[in-house]
Amino acid sequence: MDYQRFFEDAVDELRRERRYRTFAEIERDAARFPHAVWHRPEGARDIVIWCSNDYLGMGCHDDVVEAMCATARQAGAGAGGTRNISGNSHAVVELERELADLHGKEAGLVFTSGYISNQTGISTLARLIPDCLVLSDALNHNSMIEGVRQAGRDKQIFRHNDLAHLEELLKAAGGRPKLVVFESVYSMDGDVAPIGAICDLAERYGAMTYLDEVHAVGMYGARGGGIAERDGVMHRVDVIEGTLGKAFGVVGGYITGRASVIDAVRSYAPGFIFTTALPPAVAAAAAASVRHLKASGAERARQHAQVAKVKRALEAAGLPQLATSTHIVPVMVGDATACKAASDLLLEEHGIYIQPINYPTVPRGTERLRITPGPFHDDALVAQLARALVDVWSRLGLPFESRAEAAE
Amino acid sequence: MDYQRFFEDAVDELRRERRYRTFAEIERDAARFPHAVWHRPEGARDIVIWCSNDYLGMGCHDDVVEAMCATARQAGAGAGGTRNISGNSHAVVELERELADLHGKEAGLVFTSGYISNQTGISTLARLIPDCLVLSDALNHNSMIEGVRQAGRDKQIFRHNDLAHLEELLKAAGGRPKLVVFESVYSMDGDVAPIGAICDLAERYGAMTYLDEVHAVGMYGARGGGIAERDGVMHRVDVIEGTLGKAFGVVGGYITGRASVIDAVRSYAPGFIFTTALPPAVAAAAAASVRHLKASGAERARQHAQVAKVKRALEAAGLPQLATSTHIVPVMVGDATACKAASDLLLEEHGIYIQPINYPTVPRGTERLRITPGPFHDDALVAQLARALVDVWSRLGLPFESRAEAAE
Repeated sequence: MDYQRFFEDAVDELRRERRYRTFAEIERDAARFPHAVWHRPEGARDIVIWCSNDYLGMGCHDDVVEAMCATARQAGAGAGGTRNISGNSHAVVELERELADLHGKEAGLVFTSGYISNQTGISTLARLIPDCLVLSDALNHNSMIEGVRQAGRDKQIFRHNDLAHLEELLKAAGGRPKLVVFESVYSMDGDVAPIGAICDLAERYGAMTYLDEVHAVGMYGARGGGIAERDGVMHRVDVIEGTLGKAFGVVGGYITGRASVIDAVRSYAPGFIFTTALPPAVAAAAAASVRHLKASGAERARQHAQVAKVKRALEAAGLPQLATSTHIVPVMVGDATACKAASDLLLEEHGIYIQPINYPTVPRGTERLRITPGPFHDDALVAQLARALVDVWSRLGLPFESRAEAAE
Repeated sequence: MDYQRFFEDAVDELRRERRYRTFAEIERDAARFPHAVWHRPEGARDIVIWCSNDYLGMGCHDDVVEAMCATARQAGAGAGGTRNISGNSHAVVELERELADLHGKEAGLVFTSGYISNQTGISTLARLIPDCLVLSDALNHNSMIEGVRQAGRDKQIFRHNDLAHLEELLKAAGGRPKLVVFESVYSMDGDVAPIGAICDLAERYGAMTYLDEVHAVGMYGARGGGIAERDGVMHRVDVIEGTLGKAFGVVGGYITGRASVIDAVRSYAPGFIFTTALPPAVAAAAAASVRHLKASGAERARQHAQVAKVKRALEAAGLPQLATSTHIVPVMVGDATACKAASDLLLEEHGIYIQPINYPTVPRGTERLRITPGPFHDDALVAQLARALVDVWSRLGLPFESRAEAAE
């Protein structure tokens, strides 16, 4: 049996389909974020990151970095065990209190990643509720899809953000227990769920709600509680899931909710029970970030301002951006090869790093550059970005918006 | 629909079955490991941890802690994205080189945890091999069971470390592709797989091998490559999986193997692709630990010496330990309530922290205290441990070994 051959063939298939991914090797420079060093065979080069999920640069904030260092020196680099067996650090318990408070919930539970919090969180909740039907948004993240799949419960997919379709499915389900699983900000299109209206439906038809706010926590709401906080509906959502690895700038994931719900997940979720706990140093860094963003709106305000400037600059240049109401700015290419070529040219010629987003992360034909402006992208960087994109679009013969043609 | 009720009932069921877990809140003191502070409602108390999976205390090693701090200050507290989208740090690439070298393999791949490396690693491998039959040891860890389950392939469970049974199943499977999934050191019984003999069978019947060395890496073999290195069979195993969260003292997991195999997992595994990368600071700390333990055998030698002393002390006291050839020393209780009571008494009366191990981590009737002596448990602590156990065993009326009775 030639096993190596199976794996070579599997990778070759990706190459044939132009889906083979090459990872750019990056060394961030915390003192100069979003500047970084790109390590390539020909030598290092200074670049500007425009596709980071460290949306507010909090991973480079002194308070966050120093909390990590101080706690590592105090308590070591790791947790030393699972939460049950010697790994339940003081720091992780304090972090869970911060997170419960952030979302106005009774309790919080931290996982090693946002991915695992969805995967083991959703599957455990759906398994504990007898005869549960899971209703899942069509554009939910892979981690949620895997969670729904592992639950092994009946599931129905409602069309993305489609309230009428969700209502139709809820109504048809009758009196059985139901769990509605959805996101607030969808990361690739940058659009936002009607959380309040979904809660209305959930109440009307007796469903429980599970909301993923990973692309919103830290960035929306007066204290960074996410879109649900901004919309004044945080208290109406049963379980709010979030990440410590994006706007909070560190790593890890969590859920918050009623004490009984959180205690049940804590007690039954295999992906929580059988894994080494988050290091206290990581938990302390994340807690410092959450605390900072509860009190300070400056990063959010500056991010919103720079996002608006990027959108205006791209519009003025006639670049084909997808309109969003969030900090995510997709510029559409619509072809895998062209998308990769645009990304390569930006990096090599302009020192601008925007990873191409191809299938299966987005549907074929909707390949794009996904730009995430943050508070540290100053006006000069915004202007440089727009110039570089225009240059690359011109060199590759990519279409500009019809607005430009209309002006002819 | 009273959802809260479902969750309250689920937790109540655990309480009725005496399986409800309370986590001791611990603050490790890196300068005095295995000493720590136990945070309890009545106030803090100094304790000694005897159940840590930071087996060699490397989480508290200066080189490891300082690598974490230096990299956090240089590159920030987090990675800022997935491996594909801006999170592929220089530090994580270097760590993968260290790990491939540790196991004598062409390539390595780092995951956010050992749990996820098994879960997404095994399921991806088994899915990529057409018509794959998975043969899995009966005592494999939950993360491997979940990986096998998610593969959705045919599976067969062979009796724990039973070569005859494994051969019977391999033979019956005929010429179809097969993946044998097993561990080197089984964490709860502390016994060891016959890796070479399993490789013999895999070669004879054309199976691929996947070996979990999480409780062995850093501790066995001349450079800490694990039991497979110690036994001189590392090159015969196709995929070796390990953790950065136990003897290496930090957090994260990995697989190593042929470049084509690792590239295929990198390209297809959802639990790798769709998750935020390990922070560069964590990767740098782990790499420092791996490097240190490649060059230094002092920690291993001292651990083995202190483990032997603990075993001798428990034997002299007539305490019912399970004989093992590893660093894991299970002291059998055989009852969930008594096991919890013993653990509570040790902690409250003697300041000795050994978490009770109850069902479902071990079968009912085999409840135990699982002791993991390390290089920093000095002879005085070993003597104190034996005295405390004798005191607790006496107070609870737990049986001593028949050896003591035979002496009557």
